[in-house]
Amino acid sequence: MTLAEEVVAGDRRALARAITLVESTRDDHRTEAIALLNELLPHTGGSSRVGISGAPGAGKSTLIDALGGRLVDGGHEVAVLAVDPSSARSGGSVLGDKTRMDTLARSPQAYIRPSPSGGTLGGIARRTGESLLVCEAAGFDVVVVETVGVGQSETEVDGIVDVFVLLVSPGGGDELQGIKRGITELADIVVVTKADGDLLPSARNVAAEYQRALMLLRRHHDEWEPTVVMASGITGEGVAELAEAIDRHRAALDATGALARRRAEQATRALWAELQDRLLARFRDDTDLQARARALEAEVAAGRLAPAAAAAALLSS
Amino acid sequence: MTLAEEVVAGDRRALARAITLVESTRDDHRTEAIALLNELLPHTGGSSRVGISGAPGAGKSTLIDALGGRLVDGGHEVAVLAVDPSSARSGGSVLGDKTRMDTLARSPQAYIRPSPSGGTLGGIARRTGESLLVCEAAGFDVVVVETVGVGQSETEVDGIVDVFVLLVSPGGGDELQGIKRGITELADIVVVTKADGDLLPSARNVAAEYQRALMLLRRHHDEWEPTVVMASGITGEGVAELAEAIDRHRAALDATGALARRRAEQATRALWAELQDRLLARFRDDTDLQARARALEAEVAAGRLAPAAAAAALLSS
Repeated sequence: MTLAEEVVAGDRRALARAITLVESTRDDHRTEAIALLNELLPHTGGSSRVGISGAPGAGKSTLIDALGGRLVDGGHEVAVLAVDPSSARSGGSVLGDKTRMDTLARSPQAYIRPSPSGGTLGGIARRTGESLLVCEAAGFDVVVVETVGVGQSETEVDGIVDVFVLLVSPGGGDELQGIKRGITELADIVVVTKADGDLLPSARNVAAEYQRALMLLRRHHDEWEPTVVMASGITGEGVAELAEAIDRHRAALDATGALARRRAEQATRALWAELQDRLLARFRDDTDLQARARALEAEVAAGRLAPAAAAAALLSS
Repeated sequence: MTLAEEVVAGDRRALARAITLVESTRDDHRTEAIALLNELLPHTGGSSRVGISGAPGAGKSTLIDALGGRLVDGGHEVAVLAVDPSSARSGGSVLGDKTRMDTLARSPQAYIRPSPSGGTLGGIARRTGESLLVCEAAGFDVVVVETVGVGQSETEVDGIVDVFVLLVSPGGGDELQGIKRGITELADIVVVTKADGDLLPSARNVAAEYQRALMLLRRHHDEWEPTVVMASGITGEGVAELAEAIDRHRAALDATGALARRRAEQATRALWAELQDRLLARFRDDTDLQARARALEAEVAAGRLAPAAAAAALLSS
């Protein structure tokens, strides 16, 4: 069997190998990965692609574990992928941590994969988008993409998922504010976490605040009015409601064909972003051009040539 | 006289024309702009390049007006440029608004220019970086780049300034939180605005909070320990302290050569970003390739071809 056939047959080790191949930055691996993705493509598209984001400490792992556990109990197969903006620089990854998702880590119907490391944030998100396709081909019908809420990573993740869930916690200084508008605007569903015990009144306030704010923001989709859910990882409250909101979102977008349009647009954007990265990489790899680039770079660094002038000179050579 | 000579001679109308040329997206204008920038380059580098960011309502215009007024009184010439992330999409600009900077708008030693519109955020910031050079050639010794605090724009502005000033306001739900870490990490100077009257105790708390937080964050430069300043646009309190902190920052980075290194790195990064944009633009402009690209784009949108596969196919053609 080919690797693609093994993935489609549900072989977990083949799945892991396929994702490792997709994440590899080696040129020969990339060629193999592209062939693999094309072979898998007819088997993709069948999952609900759910982005979940929140600040550190907002309770992402707990909620994903609770949501995933519920879905698994309902017969679904759930994959959790991570996009960690810090891994673009550090190469490290703290997300998608199995040890923090007990229920899912033990379930044979779940698969958890940490963030690929290295490269640009956009590149990491695109590789994760490809891993998502591999998971769909392997039969997962829910793929959660987890990211940490620090700005740019949400926009990148929004480019590979169907629905964007923003987690906010009460009491953690997490009040709504201008600085967060960019992220809140992306949210299809806002979940106020830790809505239990002493924090419950505070959670209610935060939920009301977001409910008001969402009414003021431009809609992400015409088909869907963003909604606020209160949830607790401890009591399990709100998890069913979140699962139901995700289903309703999908149904709403499906009804008008918006989901298919969204996915087509995402794929097209990925094509151009990929092309841009590869054009630049090819440019950097050309040895003659490299020598010329280094000379021009030195001129630019010394302040003797405008960056745009050096770019124009490189382009014409 | 050439346009460059007029700019260097301090002709304000030439300055405005030069910046309009730099901001233009027309190909022939770009060629002219690059020639102009190279001609102006020997006259650049003489300003203190100050980035100022804050959430809407943080009091940016008021503080820039107070700071600029003080600098102008001290014999400096001050230009204010704006980078508005929303203008990348909407083409509109709400920043660098003259009517909100009374003192500077009336002063012959000051120049205010709104954000260029259209294109990508990175492109807008790069054009603003070029306008900054034009202002330096025109004799301005302080150039303030104003941006709104919504995430990515700070990173872009950080790529064209020497010092990054983050404005936070007390009581506006502006408390420190994880979501803002990415921005706080960039800050060389944090200014707690509206530190007067009823808000003074709250401002003190916010200042103490940021002071503690800055100690925990990775340093932006080895040469500089980020500092917190309390300021009031009404009483004028803290404005002198901010001006002095900007001077100390510059002196600290100058002493070790870090300022020159930083500017050289910024110019080099601008070169590669510019090259990337132009490579993609050239690719899009090739008519044969365009036809092929459209066909492949359709395949990708229909889910019959992986984006990375289409990118590879386009590259090989």
